[in-house]
Amino acid sequence: MRCSVLQAAGELEVQQRAVPRPGPREVLVRVGAVGTCGSDVHYYRHGRIGEFVVREPLVLGHEPSGRIVAVGPGVDAGRIGQRVSLEPGVPCRRCRYCHTGSYNLCPDIVFFATPPVDGAFAEYVAIADDFAHPVPEHVSDDAAALLEPLSVALWAHRRAGTGIGSRVLVAGAGPIGLLVAQVAAVQGATEILVSDPDPARRELARTFGATAVLDPAVDDPAGVDGASTADGTAGRHGVDSFVDCSGVAPAVLSGLRAVRPGGTVVLVGMGADEMTLPVAALQSREIVLTGTFRYANTWPTAVRLAASGAVDLDRLVTGHVDLEHVGDALDPSPAQVKVMVRP
Amino acid sequence: MRCSVLQAAGELEVQQRAVPRPGPREVLVRVGAVGTCGSDVHYYRHGRIGEFVVREPLVLGHEPSGRIVAVGPGVDAGRIGQRVSLEPGVPCRRCRYCHTGSYNLCPDIVFFATPPVDGAFAEYVAIADDFAHPVPEHVSDDAAALLEPLSVALWAHRRAGTGIGSRVLVAGAGPIGLLVAQVAAVQGATEILVSDPDPARRELARTFGATAVLDPAVDDPAGVDGASTADGTAGRHGVDSFVDCSGVAPAVLSGLRAVRPGGTVVLVGMGADEMTLPVAALQSREIVLTGTFRYANTWPTAVRLAASGAVDLDRLVTGHVDLEHVGDALDPSPAQVKVMVRP
Amino acid sequence: MRCSVLQAAGELEVQQRAVPRPGPREVLVRVGAVGTCGSDVHYYRHGRIGEFVVREPLVLGHEPSGRIVAVGPGVDAGRIGQRVSLEPGVPCRRCRYCHTGSYNLCPDIVFFATPPVDGAFAEYVAIADDFAHPVPEHVSDDAAALLEPLSVALWAHRRAGTGIGSRVLVAGAGPIGLLVAQVAAVQGATEILVSDPDPARRELARTFGATAVLDPAVDDPAGVDGASTADGTAGRHGVDSFVDCSGVAPAVLSGLRAVRPGGTVVLVGMGADEMTLPVAALQSREIVLTGTFRYANTWPTAVRLAASGAVDLDRLVTGHVDLEHVGDALDPSPAQVKVMVRP
Amino acid sequence: MRCSVLQAAGELEVQQRAVPRPGPREVLVRVGAVGTCGSDVHYYRHGRIGEFVVREPLVLGHEPSGRIVAVGPGVDAGRIGQRVSLEPGVPCRRCRYCHTGSYNLCPDIVFFATPPVDGAFAEYVAIADDFAHPVPEHVSDDAAALLEPLSVALWAHRRAGTGIGSRVLVAGAGPIGLLVAQVAAVQGATEILVSDPDPARRELARTFGATAVLDPAVDDPAGVDGASTADGTAGRHGVDSFVDCSGVAPAVLSGLRAVRPGGTVVLVGMGADEMTLPVAALQSREIVLTGTFRYANTWPTAVRLAASGAVDLDRLVTGHVDLEHVGDALDPSPAQVKVMVRP
Repeated sequence: MRCSVLQAAGELEVQQRAVPRPGPREVLVRVGAVGTCGSDVHYYRHGRIGEFVVREPLVLGHEPSGRIVAVGPGVDAGRIGQRVSLEPGVPCRRCRYCHTGSYNLCPDIVFFATPPVDGAFAEYVAIADDFAHPVPEHVSDDAAALLEPLSVALWAHRRAGTGIGSRVLVAGAGPIGLLVAQVAAVQGATEILVSDPDPARRELARTFGATAVLDPAVDDPAGVDGASTADGTAGRHGVDSFVDCSGVAPAVLSGLRAVRPGGTVVLVGMGADEMTLPVAALQSREIVLTGTFRYANTWPTAVRLAASGAVDLDRLVTGHVDLEHVGDALDPSPAQVKVMVRP
Repeated sequence: MRCSVLQAAGELEVQQRAVPRPGPREVLVRVGAVGTCGSDVHYYRHGRIGEFVVREPLVLGHEPSGRIVAVGPGVDAGRIGQRVSLEPGVPCRRCRYCHTGSYNLCPDIVFFATPPVDGAFAEYVAIADDFAHPVPEHVSDDAAALLEPLSVALWAHRRAGTGIGSRVLVAGAGPIGLLVAQVAAVQGATEILVSDPDPARRELARTFGATAVLDPAVDDPAGVDGASTADGTAGRHGVDSFVDCSGVAPAVLSGLRAVRPGGTVVLVGMGADEMTLPVAALQSREIVLTGTFRYANTWPTAVRLAASGAVDLDRLVTGHVDLEHVGDALDPSPAQVKVMVRP
Repeated sequence: MRCSVLQAAGELEVQQRAVPRPGPREVLVRVGAVGTCGSDVHYYRHGRIGEFVVREPLVLGHEPSGRIVAVGPGVDAGRIGQRVSLEPGVPCRRCRYCHTGSYNLCPDIVFFATPPVDGAFAEYVAIADDFAHPVPEHVSDDAAALLEPLSVALWAHRRAGTGIGSRVLVAGAGPIGLLVAQVAAVQGATEILVSDPDPARRELARTFGATAVLDPAVDDPAGVDGASTADGTAGRHGVDSFVDCSGVAPAVLSGLRAVRPGGTVVLVGMGADEMTLPVAALQSREIVLTGTFRYANTWPTAVRLAASGAVDLDRLVTGHVDLEHVGDALDPSPAQVKVMVRP
Repeated sequence: MRCSVLQAAGELEVQQRAVPRPGPREVLVRVGAVGTCGSDVHYYRHGRIGEFVVREPLVLGHEPSGRIVAVGPGVDAGRIGQRVSLEPGVPCRRCRYCHTGSYNLCPDIVFFATPPVDGAFAEYVAIADDFAHPVPEHVSDDAAALLEPLSVALWAHRRAGTGIGSRVLVAGAGPIGLLVAQVAAVQGATEILVSDPDPARRELARTFGATAVLDPAVDDPAGVDGASTADGTAGRHGVDSFVDCSGVAPAVLSGLRAVRPGGTVVLVGMGADEMTLPVAALQSREIVLTGTFRYANTWPTAVRLAASGAVDLDRLVTGHVDLEHVGDALDPSPAQVKVMVRP
């Protein structure tokens, strides 16, 4: 089979490799589509993300969908032919985090495209049967692949505690920020403020559920009263939660100021290792600050949302490339939202 | 002012009474619309609900909206003229339940139209300022009044733990059941099964968010796999939660069988005092069974949902009467969904 | 090796069988002690528990401790010699319940001494390595075995929401009820009422943490104000939670009446399949009713509690038998609390 | 009556003032004992705490106990003579925070000894009847006063999610740190690590429940495996929660490193307004970081703990002064733990 291999920072090469054999309780999947993600871009540019360093040639890509073409021992052969969305991290199933359902924190998780584990910019991949989630035929390959970023958004909201009537601020209108806005809308959030410096992204955010958009150069989210439109009263300021998808310190700081006492800040975007935070304000307002690391138990919901049409994932896709042009996808123009690889 | 007084079971009389004076921190409201509810019907027919007995003449009606026309000491006079939806129970503010935010369980709550407290089938009512919730002008009087049954539905879902991707079964497609279905949809529930013996109600349920409807005479909800449509797999049966809005034992029992292990049953509809339940099955499947008693802290969300158009309350209204015809509203034909009183 | 085999109801036979070989990621354990439990007694007497029927010869016993004597492929040989407490149910690790940490609800769990899975009244058993929990040397074999009923108690309190300052009512002072009382005390519950018809059990309960004991023949728990001693005020009656360990309908009904609005009822004891419950009272007081089915993620806490001396498990043991006398242990006199099998 | 008045930073004066009259639903309390707290010390030294500036003469003291000597309108005269512990902040009862039970976040709370509200270094104070909590006679005046810092500790643990089997790290062994350790023990935490630079404080911590003590100059809490003692295995490092009672940046940073993935950091001690935090580590380990601001709904539990003897508050007291010597109490020697004022 062919696959796209990162030899070193900036160096991609299409190689021939043996098709993997599905092991016990594994399935072999013919890859249909793979999303390209900021972490793929980062590995491509820098050859590393923090402590994760590309020392050996690495296949990138961790947002794949496809069709099962073979099964390993212990898997019902009836699954052959089934269309699937792949959850790209298979945990150890035996540690305290796996036992308690927080398998994203498993220290021994095997995650696609994280050195030294190869990813999915390839014609075939093998994966544990329970991490190949069936999707109905009417969900496109692209949408099935994008259940991965959708899962990031679902997980962010679980940690934010978003629900019906929530007021949410989102910083950053890239693919994740747009999905965070969309998922907020699907959950019944009534105020969804999206902040992004790019006017085109702000306009896009409106079509993904934002009830108001902010330009961080001129608008202070702490000065926007989410309440004013809806209930006709000036009220006290403050959103219930702030989900940062920008990774940029000024955005985090201004967002934090906009959160009501008792509210939540969830850091999704990766930025600097350290940040100077207003801890006294956080204490006196009892704000909860946390981050997200991947996701757990999101696919069943993600599949149903895509199947029912509650979310629109195809609209995120602004381009397609084949295995020979993965490099183009990993060096996107600012106008691109999500470029898909079709092996 | 004029008000409709229940003299005894089946006996309503329009009387002249003094307009109430708003006390400290109270507002006086000119009533615009009042919903009629099953409990009003029950008092009208039987003169009692369980331990609550109508011993003195009683004004019914506990779903009012209106406009503030005067304020008592300590209330900003700027609120005069404001349109409001009234939360009809004012708790003591001092007991353990009030201190902890569960004020619906306050043993000293003063609740409209519950003996001996008069209700809102009257031209004017006075109420604590913080239980008169401002609504924007574009929300109709009827919709503002119907924030009360909407609150019942919101509360049912809070106790059910409904969220994005939930699979919910609702028994009974009366006003409450319809709103429970609608609120499930607003929250992103992906399977919303509604069961009702009346075909017209079932059709109505579809327009209020039901993804499937069941006829209890022929369909067993435990046999309907909410999963099958969405994710293409037969899967294991079971909804995440079952909200009973029927109060009918066979509906409760068949609904309970349809709940997945670890799921929740919420009894909203009032029925018999006692019911024979399959406790061994409840134990071995760790099902959580509970009920709802009114609501707490629902109005802020309810107001925003009505203001944003996320819920459609006006469509529930099938008729209007004035104070002279409250009796007609309390003896509705089966085709009626919600009859409003306009004092 | 020798093991005690239930041939039919009331018929136990010591047989020779091959020592099991530990499979991949399994350990082989020389059994040190095994608790006898009500379910063992029930299988011995009736040959079945509900839908679980003993059709083939079955080894009973699901509360074992021992020492690792061999390891299968993939297990660190350094574990040989380690003392362990066995968690007797190994789930599938792949279903929605396993993924979310509720592995006790796994439909494919393999549980000791549940037909057709053999148990631990044997010299050796093999089990998945992560379900053989290390215990320090100073914890006795008996105590290490009794982490199983301790887990039942821990799980009951997790579902009850017990915490510091809680007021708890426990019905039934058998081994489980005593441990439920003890665990309540360890968690800082300030009122722990234990009800049992047997005066000796009531006295025993006092030594396991009960702050008051009740005779169900004369005391109504709803009339006992847990608050009165502690805070000097008559207050309103009601415990925060009621944990039934009796399985007896009158105990459940009187316990339910004693729960405060918003409180919780947890049914641990198995009784009749059906029970007539006061659902209207449960609704108007928003009581949460649920049951327990085994446990999940309790061993790490149980090990630490036994190791630190916070719980005293050895004191539950009132007798020991060898494999030849399992029948005596399964037909205990009322004075026995917990009889241990030492293979 | 006499009271101790802070005229300006460092200037205390005993003055005669009129005994307050209890208003509607208020009680008048003869003060028995008042704890001195770090915030009193701070106002005394600096005349301000952050935005709270002493512009007018102010009575300090917010940890009072005493006996009811008169009642205002609407309060049962039977309460006269009752011994009480005062919860020193009375919220507005009408805002969203009061309605939802988070009354500590009420923006209009009236809190003792917070400018411009006078405190309790006085012979008499008046307070809302429901914030004067009855205590039994066998609880001393000092202990009844110290339910306030006990409440700080209870609240810290509620936000930390501490429970049975928890592993907790506490930085700072002042009065609050000691109570946080003690409350952890009462809740069944099995590892309680306390860090303090002062050897005498570390020894004291052992008597308040610490299972191990650390010297921050030489011990790195991230290197201490809470698991090793209890379960005999090296295990993975990490405490479930870290409660900072020091307000010192290096303590916060080293504590944060000691928290397991998915664990919680609660900042109780007040320090600098800003702190540079390792946000990338917090994200990748999904640590939850929050702070505490006072407390809500802790007194009922605090009273029961003191009444049952589960906590020992009198042992914190290292000195007593009268109103004339409040200045001495507010300039304590390092050997003092808690100095009480007896008006």
